[in-house]
This record gives sequence, structure tokens and C-alpha cells, in this order.
Amino acid sequence: MPKFKGKKMRSEAREILEAVKSGDMSVEAALLSLKKQPFEDIGFAKVDMHRGIRQGFPEVIYGAGKSSGQIGEIMDAMIRNGQKQILITRIDKEKADELGRIHDISYKPEARIVCYGKGSDPGGKGKIVVATGGTSDIPVAEEAAVTAEFFGNEVVRLYDVGVAGLHRLLSHLDDIMSAGVIIAVAGMEGALASVIGGMADCPVIAVPTSVGYGAAFEGVSALLSMLNSCASGVSVVNIDNGFGAGYQASMINRR
Amino acid sequence: MPKFKGKKMRSEAREILEAVKSGDMSVEAALLSLKKQPFEDIGFAKVDMHRGIRQGFPEVIYGAGKSSGQIGEIMDAMIRNGQKQILITRIDKEKADELGRIHDISYKPEARIVCYGKGSDPGGKGKIVVATGGTSDIPVAEEAAVTAEFFGNEVVRLYDVGVAGLHRLLSHLDDIMSAGVIIAVAGMEGALASVIGGMADCPVIAVPTSVGYGAAFEGVSALLSMLNSCASGVSVVNIDNGFGAGYQASMINRR
Amino acid sequence: MPKFKGKKMRSEAREILEAVKSGDMSVEAALLSLKKQPFEDIGFAKVDMHRGIRQGFPEVIYGAGKSSGQIGEIMDAMIRNGQKQILITRIDKEKADELGRIHDISYKPEARIVCYGKGSDPGGKGKIVVATGGTSDIPVAEEAAVTAEFFGNEVVRLYDVGVAGLHRLLSHLDDIMSAGVIIAVAGMEGALASVIGGMADCPVIAVPTSVGYGAAFEGVSALLSMLNSCASGVSVVNIDNGFGAGYQASMINRR
Amino acid sequence: MPKFKGKKMRSEAREILEAVKSGDMSVEAALLSLKKQPFEDIGFAKVDMHRGIRQGFPEVIYGAGKSSGQIGEIMDAMIRNGQKQILITRIDKEKADELGRIHDISYKPEARIVCYGKGSDPGGKGKIVVATGGTSDIPVAEEAAVTAEFFGNEVVRLYDVGVAGLHRLLSHLDDIMSAGVIIAVAGMEGALASVIGGMADCPVIAVPTSVGYGAAFEGVSALLSMLNSCASGVSVVNIDNGFGAGYQASMINRR
Amino acid sequence: MPKFKGKKMRSEAREILEAVKSGDMSVEAALLSLKKQPFEDIGFAKVDMHRGIRQGFPEVIYGAGKSSGQIGEIMDAMIRNGQKQILITRIDKEKADELGRIHDISYKPEARIVCYGKGSDPGGKGKIVVATGGTSDIPVAEEAAVTAEFFGNEVVRLYDVGVAGLHRLLSHLDDIMSAGVIIAVAGMEGALASVIGGMADCPVIAVPTSVGYGAAFEGVSALLSMLNSCASGVSVVNIDNGFGAGYQASMINRR
Amino acid sequence: MPKFKGKKMRSEAREILEAVKSGDMSVEAALLSLKKQPFEDIGFAKVDMHRGIRQGFPEVIYGAGKSSGQIGEIMDAMIRNGQKQILITRIDKEKADELGRIHDISYKPEARIVCYGKGSDPGGKGKIVVATGGTSDIPVAEEAAVTAEFFGNEVVRLYDVGVAGLHRLLSHLDDIMSAGVIIAVAGMEGALASVIGGMADCPVIAVPTSVGYGAAFEGVSALLSMLNSCASGVSVVNIDNGFGAGYQASMINRR
Amino acid sequence: MPKFKGKKMRSEAREILEAVKSGDMSVEAALLSLKKQPFEDIGFAKVDMHRGIRQGFPEVIYGAGKSSGQIGEIMDAMIRNGQKQILITRIDKEKADELGRIHDISYKPEARIVCYGKGSDPGGKGKIVVATGGTSDIPVAEEAAVTAEFFGNEVVRLYDVGVAGLHRLLSHLDDIMSAGVIIAVAGMEGALASVIGGMADCPVIAVPTSVGYGAAFEGVSALLSMLNSCASGVSVVNIDNGFGAGYQASMINRR
Amino acid sequence: MPKFKGKKMRSEAREILEAVKSGDMSVEAALLSLKKQPFEDIGFAKVDMHRGIRQGFPEVIYGAGKSSGQIGEIMDAMIRNGQKQILITRIDKEKADELGRIHDISYKPEARIVCYGKGSDPGGKGKIVVATGGTSDIPVAEEAAVTAEFFGNEVVRLYDVGVAGLHRLLSHLDDIMSAGVIIAVAGMEGALASVIGGMADCPVIAVPTSVGYGAAFEGVSALLSMLNSCASGVSVVNIDNGFGAGYQASMINRR
Repeated sequence: MPKFKGKKMRSEAREILEAVKSGDMSVEAALLSLKKQPFEDIGFAKVDMHRGIRQGFPEVIYGAGKSSGQIGEIMDAMIRNGQKQILITRIDKEKADELGRIHDISYKPEARIVCYGKGSDPGGKGKIVVATGGTSDIPVAEEAAVTAEFFGNEVVRLYDVGVAGLHRLLSHLDDIMSAGVIIAVAGMEGALASVIGGMADCPVIAVPTSVGYGAAFEGVSALLSMLNSCASGVSVVNIDNGFGAGYQASMINRR
Repeated sequence: MPKFKGKKMRSEAREILEAVKSGDMSVEAALLSLKKQPFEDIGFAKVDMHRGIRQGFPEVIYGAGKSSGQIGEIMDAMIRNGQKQILITRIDKEKADELGRIHDISYKPEARIVCYGKGSDPGGKGKIVVATGGTSDIPVAEEAAVTAEFFGNEVVRLYDVGVAGLHRLLSHLDDIMSAGVIIAVAGMEGALASVIGGMADCPVIAVPTSVGYGAAFEGVSALLSMLNSCASGVSVVNIDNGFGAGYQASMINRR
Repeated sequence: MPKFKGKKMRSEAREILEAVKSGDMSVEAALLSLKKQPFEDIGFAKVDMHRGIRQGFPEVIYGAGKSSGQIGEIMDAMIRNGQKQILITRIDKEKADELGRIHDISYKPEARIVCYGKGSDPGGKGKIVVATGGTSDIPVAEEAAVTAEFFGNEVVRLYDVGVAGLHRLLSHLDDIMSAGVIIAVAGMEGALASVIGGMADCPVIAVPTSVGYGAAFEGVSALLSMLNSCASGVSVVNIDNGFGAGYQASMINRR
Repeated sequence: MPKFKGKKMRSEAREILEAVKSGDMSVEAALLSLKKQPFEDIGFAKVDMHRGIRQGFPEVIYGAGKSSGQIGEIMDAMIRNGQKQILITRIDKEKADELGRIHDISYKPEARIVCYGKGSDPGGKGKIVVATGGTSDIPVAEEAAVTAEFFGNEVVRLYDVGVAGLHRLLSHLDDIMSAGVIIAVAGMEGALASVIGGMADCPVIAVPTSVGYGAAFEGVSALLSMLNSCASGVSVVNIDNGFGAGYQASMINRR
Repeated sequence: MPKFKGKKMRSEAREILEAVKSGDMSVEAALLSLKKQPFEDIGFAKVDMHRGIRQGFPEVIYGAGKSSGQIGEIMDAMIRNGQKQILITRIDKEKADELGRIHDISYKPEARIVCYGKGSDPGGKGKIVVATGGTSDIPVAEEAAVTAEFFGNEVVRLYDVGVAGLHRLLSHLDDIMSAGVIIAVAGMEGALASVIGGMADCPVIAVPTSVGYGAAFEGVSALLSMLNSCASGVSVVNIDNGFGAGYQASMINRR
Repeated sequence: MPKFKGKKMRSEAREILEAVKSGDMSVEAALLSLKKQPFEDIGFAKVDMHRGIRQGFPEVIYGAGKSSGQIGEIMDAMIRNGQKQILITRIDKEKADELGRIHDISYKPEARIVCYGKGSDPGGKGKIVVATGGTSDIPVAEEAAVTAEFFGNEVVRLYDVGVAGLHRLLSHLDDIMSAGVIIAVAGMEGALASVIGGMADCPVIAVPTSVGYGAAFEGVSALLSMLNSCASGVSVVNIDNGFGAGYQASMINRR
Repeated sequence: MPKFKGKKMRSEAREILEAVKSGDMSVEAALLSLKKQPFEDIGFAKVDMHRGIRQGFPEVIYGAGKSSGQIGEIMDAMIRNGQKQILITRIDKEKADELGRIHDISYKPEARIVCYGKGSDPGGKGKIVVATGGTSDIPVAEEAAVTAEFFGNEVVRLYDVGVAGLHRLLSHLDDIMSAGVIIAVAGMEGALASVIGGMADCPVIAVPTSVGYGAAFEGVSALLSMLNSCASGVSVVNIDNGFGAGYQASMINRR
Repeated sequence: MPKFKGKKMRSEAREILEAVKSGDMSVEAALLSLKKQPFEDIGFAKVDMHRGIRQGFPEVIYGAGKSSGQIGEIMDAMIRNGQKQILITRIDKEKADELGRIHDISYKPEARIVCYGKGSDPGGKGKIVVATGGTSDIPVAEEAAVTAEFFGNEVVRLYDVGVAGLHRLLSHLDDIMSAGVIIAVAGMEGALASVIGGMADCPVIAVPTSVGYGAAFEGVSALLSMLNSCASGVSVVNIDNGFGAGYQASMINRR
């Protein structure tokens, strides 16, 4: 199937159809390539095989609370069904090492992500800028950045550009103003999203982080700030949800 | 998943592919069909058919935030479709009077409910006891009681039997111990649910009310109490949700 | 007494009375069989011996925060008073193993439940469906399922049918629509309860779980969702309270 | 300047530059057309004149808490600086009528929006679907829809498709699966965002509404649900912030 | 449990069984009797008898949410039963005037209390000091003071002695140090309770008030302060619950 | 303000002014003296003198967050000043053992209290009843009971008498109705305080405990219940604050 | 006394002492000028007469919840004691008009402040900058600004310089960098305080306002943001507490 | 805006347009330049230059979440840039020891601060008083005190002067009334700030601490108390933020 893979990652199902139309692929081969069942029941989990057709993205496994054995079984089911790219989030090094004994994977320790397969070809139309307020926000930002890269986007990292030292942010005006999507990652008072939102002319996805102490309330302060942003064009995902931001940014960027 | 379903789906996919191959279907249309497949195949028809089965039951209109004109239109549509029994909740006297000029309804002012049609015949197997902690909880209790009666249940009202005067509750032991379902309605500290739950041997549905002041926080105190009830067999509905309790009690009682 | 045990578990006291009426049992023997005291005081705890008469169910010990020694003493007191079925919740494997050296028990590790005695005969009229949104909700679901089974019900498990992959749930419409009671177990946004509540025509007991992160706030997000369900017929128990749901479902199902 | 206005609204500044390049416009005329100052200070407010260049969108005035006189002054300053399209949100009929005596505006009562100018030409690449859980969510949805339309998008309205009656939503699978961006507007438990997010293959912007009572806590329940959505590709704006959703959806759709 | 109780209970069970055997009692009736036994035997009679013992005390009617007609009816019932002293709380002047047309009452506007009867004779052993932080706390303080006076206590009022002007409080050290019970009424940061608690050697009942704005959160700030008082001997009642404080202070003082 | 005070103060001000005039006092020193005047005149001496009066009572050391070395030093200072009775709360066995090597103490492991000295002679006029809802509340109850005993009171323990098995509580009506003060200790829904408050005619001090899970929120549910008790005569201390309850109960009982 | 009034307002007491020292004022006259009593009890309030000596500032009356009659009485007591400057906050126009019939006052409607007396002479060493995020924050800002001016400071107003249009703020860098104290007033996400705090090298007092909707939670979002500011040198006062900020800024500026 | 600024900006826009016209600049590059203009013109240079002016002050590194290696690298960069004084907060002994092997530092274990360099010369005009309510608040107080000392201030420590033993605080009236700035550090009910604020005539910075249990909610109780202080002149920093208080106090004191 890789030969049918074109520029845009979302088009896997579409390309199969085009190939059928043009006669480059037989109906039989196409049926085999398409997910045959909407999901596969492997006992403790029902692996969704239809999302590939619906959303045209690599499959994703949320690793938290799953043993490496369980993750391995889900991967197997996906691979059986023809999946070539799998992203596993919230997975620590130990479990990743265990997976690595069986599957050919790469591990991004800061993002705590396992990548199986080579990732999509760059298909996004613009650059995705991932900015953080401080250095402690970087793990969440990396989860977003690695996700966006694996989903075929070019990512620009602007780390530690918090609003308390505005010149750090202002020195990257070019990146901000030419971005296709911006992911603003910040804890504490989360003001970064508003400041970037006021300067940029592209969608901004804000990610509150649990960085801070006291009245930061594990990310609630940043979350509320971002929801109340006085800048238009800002939307918010869950606290520390770097993956969610990277995923939606990819959706936006491939449009 | 039953075999038939899997087969059907796969054959549909083949048909789509054949149509694409033959040029009878565009790639766009095929892609949309593939995306919709697992939802349409399995779900929609059944869900819709199921609505038909349910028709023997009264319909319910949530009146809050709707004008009497809007409510009237919804009623008309229901009646046109053969509905003979309609319950309208959260409706004040003024709107009810306006409805009453057009439809043959009865209004229960304390419950703030309009009944259209005569209600279901008594079909429940046991009695539904509706108990309140204080007199201020009665409107919520009446919403539950009138709902349960309209849905064909015999209702016993035990009002103002709060735990601060335990003898009031204990003097109704017969009712409590022979009930089929009990709805415990209380504000403030909401202890009524636990005390009744400890005595009864039937399901207890607890309804926190917004009665109280200060740290009652508009019903939050009672809600938390009820969720944390040390008595088994107690479940909880939303604050002031008398209708929800009456509805579920009816479901339980007709079993 | 076992010979008097008929189909329905709750009828233990009733059967004694029937036997007395028919002359099959002497008043003396009946007196002995009936709990002689409403409770037994064993120092740190007052074991309730009257609940068997009131609620006709196996006895339950909440294991959290009790040593295996304390649990053993409570079990002894119950057995002394003629109890043949005991369920112990929230107990880890280590304590269960210690209990197992003295009593003939079985341990369900995923549900973290110890069962003493063989459980009630199936007496419920319908099936109890236990559904979960994700795989991480399974331990709470198992607590509900094992409880319901021990209390004499047939249980159908539908795990990992969360609303983000609706076709997984829709493929089980038959189970949902023929259920006697449904227990919907979900963390994160807890939408499962509303979706099931909208499809089913039986009572739905919703169990929020503490699964999730960030603004899931240890189950608060799911709890609020479930309390605000737009579907009628849904009531809610405490966060992670699988036992409470299984218990109330049993009460409803035996009606 | 209208003659330079092409298909895409964002390109106002770009088109001026193109016209300068091609010689169709003199540098002087271009300077005049471009905002001369980044903002104009009118005493109580600093009207931002540079946002047009930065974001290429119509200007927006947040009407809440401003008198019609103040709004009129801000409009005047904008018009003086060449703005031809102004959107005024959160404005009641009375103030709109007062504005209407001076300016040529249209008022959308359900959305509580005043539009000045004819709105951008359709420039978005896909359709924006605006869906609501219930009828009470419609005012917020209209704020989103009218905004998106004024910013040059084709909008499809799917109102009252809440998850408690899933067949209503499933009957619109075509719209959902072919959308460019979806705005999911819901109060109470806010499950709509997750269900739609699981089906669609485009970005979903979730708008919690303050619809509901009791433990809905003025929209907090829906907000938390949406932040915790188990579906990927969902981000969230502030409670009742229909404008914010419509604005960001426009940004995404014109990409 | 006293012997008599056990005996009585057991013999009653025997009598029930004998009656069932002889056919004098149906199985149903016997079952209900058995279920009620532990509650009836032990509790009901005593509780009821106890009400009689209490009759020497004024009765209290919580006036909020009751019409003057309803209050009048409750008063009539009390008076018919021989009650000579009745206190009605949370009642506005208008309702009090209506009551005054029928009954011989006095109204305390600041306390919003109606007194019927002359109040108890001074029976308390010490003085009850009622102190407030500011002038806005006086209505709550008066509710406490009037209650305590009506229940037969001498009351000393120390109003507007908040900790921001400590010398005002210190100038009343004599009153504080010779008090029998102190009621400390304060809103905002509620520090008064701690400062008085540190000086006094008698019980202090703290009453948080809803006085304040912003982060006072309608009394929550004062409530938390008082619960966390670093001074021993301080307990707390609900926000604005002047009556509760006056009532408990009376209980303590008459000891 | 008593006359003497005013006179004294005024004359002091005159003396200061005279000293400034004569050059005997600098302006700086005079300013400081004037600023301090109302605090010193009225407060300090009396407060200090009052400490002397209190000396007949046991001293209390809050052990949490202090090393055994620090506690030992504080004890030494107290003993040097003639203190014969010291109570140390929130101290674990290990630290107690270390203290035991130096001082002649006794340790109550369940209450986590160290007693130094033999405690006060029984001086209270009535019995203090300490009741708990469950067995997990016993440690907090013991903190209260041991404190009350050390302060010279007779204590009656009623443990595990939660409202879900009301007959257990009702079987102790005699103790409850003859108590001087009652301390009601409960977690989860905290209903015990209301039920006891409704039966007793003495002051009830409610202690919420952090026992429970999920929506118990570490004691918040019980705290709110108790603050909102529908029974008069109930006041509340901080979550798990057994000592505070025992201390205030002692204050009340010795009156 | 006016003749002794020098540059610095705080030195009223000091100047009297200097005059006594130099012989310009007799001890008798000085005694008369100094507050003779620490407070005056006028029944419902104890007016603090000593604060003038302690804090050297005009007297302040918090007008909220006081009738114009009560405010007038407090003013009278102050004036009787020699006060020449009084600031009354949170007072609406109607009450101000009533006061104006008796006293020679001026009313600032936007700040909702009444000034009695001409205010202190400028004594502050630097300028106090009062900045707001939006136009809706202006009333709170005016409360701060008018307070600071009445207490003798030069105030620079920078209104509507919110971070969503950063260039508006940046164009006032000169004011910000030369300020003595800055008061940053903002609602919604409250990011203004962090951005200003990062640029300025003087103390910043942040005032969250209740401006916003939805998850702004009446100022909580801004409050948390400001408490968590990543910029050093920022402290926070209560929501909408413009007076508190103006007061503390005056204290800082006169140092 | 000063004339020069406007002129400059306008002429730049002209130059861009001319360059586009002549083909020297692409439309894309021109668009980016126009977008950046208001930020660059006004802000960036000045902000950056301003960092240079600030260099006379110690730099601060927030140590939490950074490895000693990372801290060392940041220190190296600072030292390379000529910094002679560095303060590192929230650093434990182990990391400090590691740093000590490379740099010449001193470690304050109670404050958990590392000081590099000798600190500023005393430049503050007054004394900074740091007061705590209890002994458990001392670590936070030390963070404030060490910071203030390192920034060149004389610090007076008043520890364990909580309001429950008012004489302890009153015995330090001299220190409080002659202070330049006061930092009030307290957990639990946080009343210290109000009491000190009422006595002092200088700015008070309140620091809530997470000391306490139960309803102290990790510092929230103290935080709310302090925000609601009835004393004027009090502002608040984040829970446990001793550094922030010490830093702002230094700013105030050097004025």
C-alpha cells in the first residue's frame, strides 16, 4: 500500500478508491486494504478499526493505566488489520523498553511517546508553532510537537517564551506571524495564550499545564485563564493534554 | 458482532468499490459512504424502530425556557402522531393557563406540571413512597409524585419527616417497609436518604433539593451527602430533579 | 435452613414463616433461625444481624481500612448468626490470602472482592448489563458485576464501548434494549450514561470513575455529566462505587 | 477599495500589496487604505486599527456593558479608518434599535448580534456545521453561526440533536462526515461534543452552555465534559462563547 | 442492650410465630412485623415520650419560605398543645405585621424574629457575649442575641470590634474574660473568632456571615477561617446562622 | 470605655507632649509612643495576667510537623514553668517512643496522643458521649475521647452506630438522652450529627472525618452535612479535629 | 491645624510634635489636636479615632450596606474629632446626594466615591500608574485612581491596554517604566498583571475584576491568574477592590 | 502616541509599499513586515534595552523541577554575562551540595535557598519585619527573609506570634509600628495579616501557607482570609510564595 501513499496523509482511504477507479488496484486488494470490520474485540478492549477511514490518521493508543502486555496486544490487533503507523502516548521508558523487545519502535523520552512506523509524510500546509511559557512546560509541549510531527507536520519549537519576559516572545514575531497553527503551552497564570492569540492571525490551541504551586491548583488557574482569553481565535484542551493539541493542530493544518 | 452484520458490511464495501471501479460512484461519494457505514448499518434503523415500540408511554416536555407557544406546537406535533398522554414539567401557572385555552389539560401548581390525557393505568407492582425532609422540599416531591402517578403508579406521600425529629419518620415504618420504590427528597444536609436507605429493603432514589442557605450551596451539601450515603441501595439524581426521580421510579416499579 | 431456601433469595424470612404456618417447622426452630438479636457488638464494630430480615440479601463487609483480622472477626460473628453468604469489597490480594487460610473463600482480583458462600441462586427477572467507556474503567465495572452475580443475577459485560467510537456501542443494541437494568461505568466525560440512557427503556445506574487526568478532577467531571444527563431514567452513585451500583441493580432486578 | 476585494476575506492587505505591485494602485492610495495608526484612542477605549492587517477579518465589538453611545463612537472610529464590516456581539434589541437610527445595520435577535456591512464573501473551503444538544442552546449556536456566516462561511445548522435521542444525530451523518469544521454546542452533560468528535474527521470546537439546573452549575458540568472528551480533535471555548467558536472556526476554515 | 429489651423482643417474635402457626396472622403481616421490630421496640416510644419532657422549652418556627398563613397555623397548633413561648426566625416585617393582627407578638426588626410569649426566665449561669466584626454583621448577631435572651440568658453585645482595630476589642477584655459563652459573628476574613478564642476561657461559637464581596464568596472565606481557627475551644455553625449559635449557646449556658 | 482608662490615656499623652516640649523625648520616640498607646494601655497587661489565671489547666502541644526533639524542648520549658499535665496530639508511635526515653509519659496509639501527668480530676458535671458512624472514624473519636478524659471528664463511647443501621443507635437512647455533651464523629455523609442532634437535649459537637472516597472529598461532604444540620444545637469543628471537639466539650462540661 | 500641614500627609501627628517641640504650639492645643480617645462608640459603630495617628491617612468609610444616615453619623463623629479629610467608598449617587445636602462633599460617579475635604497635598515620590485590560474594568480602576489622588498622589491612567492588543500597552512603555507603583486592573484572564510585572521595575498591585462571563466565575479566573503570576513583584488584592489597591499604592509611594 | 512614532511608522509602511512596487520586496515579505510593525516599532528594542538597565540586581533562578546540572548551566550563563549575585529558590540540600562542588555558594536549609555572591549592600530605607503565625510557617518565612536580606534589606524576624496568643504579638508593638514593610506569613485561618494590618502604618504583604489540615485545603483558607482582610494596606501573594513576598518587599523598601 505504501506506493499509493501520496502527499496528504488523510487520503489513505481516498487513494485506495482512486486506485480502484483508475484500475491500478483490484477490488479484492482494496477490500483487503480497507478495514474489514469496524472494530476488533480483544477481550479487554474493542480496537477501533474504522477510525482510519473516518479520520485518516495513524492509530493512537493511550498508554496510561495499560500494561506493556495490553499495549502489545492492541498493537498486534492494529497491525493485523493493516495499520502501519501507531502512536502510543503517556508511556514510560520501562514499558517502552518492553515493547521494544517485540516491535520495531522509537521512544521519545521527553514526550513519553512511542512511535511505531515512520510517521506520515509532511502534508500540512503551514508550520505548527509550539510555544511554552517556561522550561517546566516542555514535556507537555513535546507531547504536542512529536504528535504533530508524526502526523506529518513541520513543527517550530519556541520554548521558555513566557510573558514575564516579553522580549523573548517578541524576538520570534516572524515565527508567530507566519504560523499555520500555534499551540500555546503554559502553566501558572497561562497568559501566554492570550498574548500569542492577540498577535497571531491563525488558530491558537491553548494547553494549560499542571506546572505551578499553591493557587495554581494543578493547572486550574492556567485552564481558567485560557478559557477566558480576551483574544479571539483561542480554544483550549484539557490540562497537560499535549497530544490532544497536537492532534487537533494536525487536523487543522491538513485542511 | 453477529456474523450477519459483518458480512453485510463487507459486502456493502465491495459494492461501493465496484461502483467506483465502474465509474457509477464518485470517489467523494464512496468515501462518505465508507465513513458512514458502521454507524448506519448497525444503529440508525434499530434506534428508530425502537422509538416506535416505546409509543405506549407518555411523552414528556421539559417546559423551562420554552414559551407557551413553543410548548403548544410541540404538543400539537405529538398529538398529530397519536400521542394521548403528555406530561409538561417546569411550567408556571401563567403559561399553563395559556395552554389551557387551547388544550384540555390539568395543572398541578405545586408540582408545576401540566398533564394532558388521563395518565397511564396503574401498572406498577408496588407503591412508590415519596418522602421529604421538610415542608420546603414539597414542590420537588410533588414533581416526583405527580410524575409517578401519571405514569401509572400508586404514590404514598410522607412529607416533613426529616431526621431531626426521628419519631415522625419512625411512625411511618409500615409505609417504608412495604414500599416498592422510595423517593427521598431533602435539602440542607440530606440525611433523610441514608436513614431511609438503612431501613428499607427496596431501591431508594435520592433527590437533593436546593433548600437551605449558606453552606447548603444551593443543594450541593445535600447532593454530596446522598452520593456518600453509607446505606446501600441509594442512587441520586440532579438537584431538584423531582421528575427524574419519578420517572426512574416508574421504570423500576413496572418491572 | 438451606432446605427452605427457594428461588428468591429475599424470601428467607418469608419461607420460615410459611414453614411455620404449614407446620413444617416448629416455632422454636424458627426462632432460632430468625436473628435473635438485631446486632452483635464485637467491640470495634456492631454487626447488623437484622438486615438479613429487612433486605433479604447476603451480608456485605466494606473491607477498606480494616485489617484481615478485623474482617475475620466480623465474618465469624456473621457466620455464628447463621449467615451463609458474605461479600467483602475493597480488599486487596494480600488480605484475601490471609482470610483464605481460615475461611473457604474465593477472590476476584480485578473486582477486589472476596466471596464467602456460593452466592444466591439466579433470581433476577432480567439481565443486568454492565458497560464501560474504556478499559481503565473495568475494575469498577467488575466490582459491580461480581456483586450483581453474587446476589443472583445474570450479568452481561460490554466493556470499552465509549462514545468516541459509537459503532462499538451500537453493535450491542440488542443487549442494551433487552436489559433489565443497565450499569453504565465511565470516567473522563462520562457521556456513556446519557447515550445508553437515551437508547434503553430500563433503569440506568451510572457510575462515574476516577479515570482521567487534569480537569477530570478524580471523577468529578464524569459525576457532573451523569447527574446532568439529558436522558431520563438515569440515577447516579458515588465515584468508583461499583458495589453500590451492583447492589441497587440487584434490588431493582429482583422486583 | 471594494474592487480589490477578491474571494478570500483575509487577503485585504494582501490585495492592496498585489495592486501596488501590478501598478493598479498608487502607493499613496495604498497608504491611505492601510491603517495609518495601530490604534486610535477615543478616550474610554483604544480602538485597534491594526488587527485588520494582522488577522484580515471584520472588526468585532463586544457589546456587553457598553452603552449604544459608546458602541456608536467605536463604530465611528472604525469607519473613519476605512473599516467596512463590523460585527457587534452581546447586544440587545433596544441598543441595536438605537444604533439603527444612525448606522445602516441589521440585527439578528436570536444571536443578539448587529452586523454592519454585508459580510465577507464566502471564502471558506468547507462547510461549518453548528450542532446543538437542545433547543435552549440555540441562542449560543446562533451567535456562532451568524459570526461564521458574516466571516464568509457556509453554515449548516443541526439543532436539537442531543445524544439522548441518538437517531436524531445519526440521521445527519452526511452533514457531520463532510463538514470542514464542526461547532458542538451543548449544556447539561455536554456529551454531544464527544459523540460528534468520535464520528467526524474534522476539527470540533465545543461550546459549553449555561443551560441546565442544579449540578449543571451554570455550564461547568458541560465545560468539564468537553475538556475531558475521550474523542481526539476536540477543543473548547468559554461557556456560552458562541462568538469565539464561530471566529476560530472561520480561521480554521479559510486555511 | 439491657436484658429486658432482648427478652421482650424475643418473646414478641415468638408471639408472631405462634400467631402465624395458628393462622391468626398472615405471613405478609408477620414479615412486616418482623422487619419493624428493632426500630419499634427500642426507639419510637422513647423518642415520643421524650418530646413530652422537652415541653418546658420555647418552640421554634423557621419562617423562611413559609407564608404568614402557614406560620399562623403552626402557631395555633402549638398553642393548642399548651405551648406558651414561640420564636419565629427569618420573618420579614410584612409577615410579622400580618401575624400581629391575630396573635399577641413582638417583632425585632433587626433580628427579623417574632417572639410570642414572654421568653424564659433568666436561667443561664453566665453571660452570653455576642460580638461582631463590623456593623454589617449586626443583623446576624441580633438573631443570635434575641434568641439567647428569649431562651432566658443575659446577653452582652459588643458590636463593631473587628480585628483591624484591635484596641476596640481589647477595651472589652473584661466582658470577654468573664463570659459564660461567646458568640463571635464576622464576615470577610472572620478573624474575630480566632482572636477572641485566644483570649477567652469559655466556649466560643463562631458564626460566619455572608458580609463581604469578591473572594469572600458569600461567607465561605469566613467559614473556612473559623473552621481552621488556631485557637482551641471554637466551633462553628452555618453561614448567617445566628439562631443556631444563640440556641446552642443557651444549651451550654443552662448546663 | 471605663473612665479611668480614658483619663489615664489622656494624661499619658500630655506627659509625652510635655517631655517633647522639654526636650526630654525625641519626636520619633514620642510618635512611636502615641501609636502604641491604645494597644498597650488596654490590652497587653491584662492579656498577660490572664495567662497566669489559666495555669491550672493542662497545656497542649500540637505534634504534627514537629520533631520529637522539638516537642521535648517545649515540654521541658513547660515543666520548668510548673506545668504538671501536658497533652501532645498528632504524634506517631516512633516519636512517642523517643519522648518516652526521657519523660514519664503514656501513649494512646489509636488516638495518637501522648499524655504527660495524670490528667485532671473528674470535674465535669455530666458525661461526654463520643459516637461514631463507622469503625474507620474511631481514631478521630479516640483523639476526642482521650482529650476529654485527660481534661477530667467521664466519657462514654458509642462506636459504629451510623444511621444506615438506625436500631444500633436507638438501642443507646439512654446514653444519648442523659449526656452532658455529645461529640458526633462521622465521615461520608455525616448524617449522624443530625440524627443525634434531633434526639439529644444537650449541645452536640460534630466532627467530620476524612473517611470515605470519591465525592466524600476528604471530609468535605461530611463537613457540609454537619454545617447544614436541620437539628438545632449542633456546631462543627474542622475535619478530623477530634482534639478540638474534646477540648470544647470539656469547656462546656465544666461549666 | 492647617497651618501645620506640610508636604507629607502622614506627618500630621509628627508635625504637631515638632510644633510642640519648637514652642509653636502649646501642649494644650496639641492635646486638643491629637485624637483624644482611641475610638468613639456611636451605638452601631465604633469609630476608630486612632488610625490617623497610626497610619497618617485620611479616614475612610466603607459605604456598602450603610444608609446615608449611618454614614452621616460616622462622618459627624470623625469631624467632631478633628478629621478634615474623609473618603467614602461604594456609595451610589442617591446616597451621595443625600449626604450632599448636609456636608460639603464631591462625588465621583464612576468611582462611586464621595470625597470630603480637599485631599492631601501631593506627597508621593513617584507616579502611580493605573492600567486596565478593558473598558469594563474602568469603574474599579477609578476607585483605585480617585483613592490614590485623594491620598496625595499623581496618577496616570492607561485604560483599555489589554494583552490581546499588545501594541497598545507597548506604546506606553515610558509610563510603565518610570512609574513608582503600578495598579493593574483586569478581569477575564487577568494576564495584564503578568505582562506589566515583567516589564516594570516597581511594585505592581494587581486587582482582579468580576468582568467576564462563564468560566470567569465573577473574577476567580483573574484572581488565580494574578496570584500565579510568573512575574516577580506582583501582589494581589480582593476582586474589584480598587480602593485597597489605591490605599496600599499610596502607602508604598509615600515611603 | 508621540508624533515621532506615528511618522516613523507611516514612513516605514511607505517604504515597504515602494519596495513592493519596484519589485524589491515580495508581497509575502511585505505582508509579514506590515503585521510585525506595531510590535517592533514600539516595543522590542525598548524592552531589550531595559534589561540592560536592570542588571545591577541579583538574578533569580526558580529551582523547582530543575536538575542541579540545569541550574549550573543557567548560573554559568549568568556569570558569563557579568552577574555577580544569584539567588536560587526551592532547592533541596542534595542539589545545593552538588552545586557547591562547582560554585562558591552558601545554602540556607530552612529557606531552601542558595545564594551566590555576597548579596546587595543594605539599601532599603526601613526594616522589613517578617512575622509568622506558627512554627510550621517558618520555612516560608525564611524564604522571604533570606530573599529580602540578599536584596539588601535589614530583616526583623517575629516568629510564632499567631493571633490565638495575642500577647505574643502585642509584646512586639515597637517592631511592628516602626517597620518599613511587613511580611505576614500564616496558614490555617491566616488572621495574622488582618491583625498586623490593623496596627501597622506600612504596607503589609500577606503570604498564606499550606500549613493546616482538613478545611485548610492546602492554604486556600488562609489565602481567602488574607484577600478579604478588613484591614487596609494588605496585599497577598501565592500560597507558600515566600520569595515573591521578599522580592516585592525589597522593591517597596528601596523606593
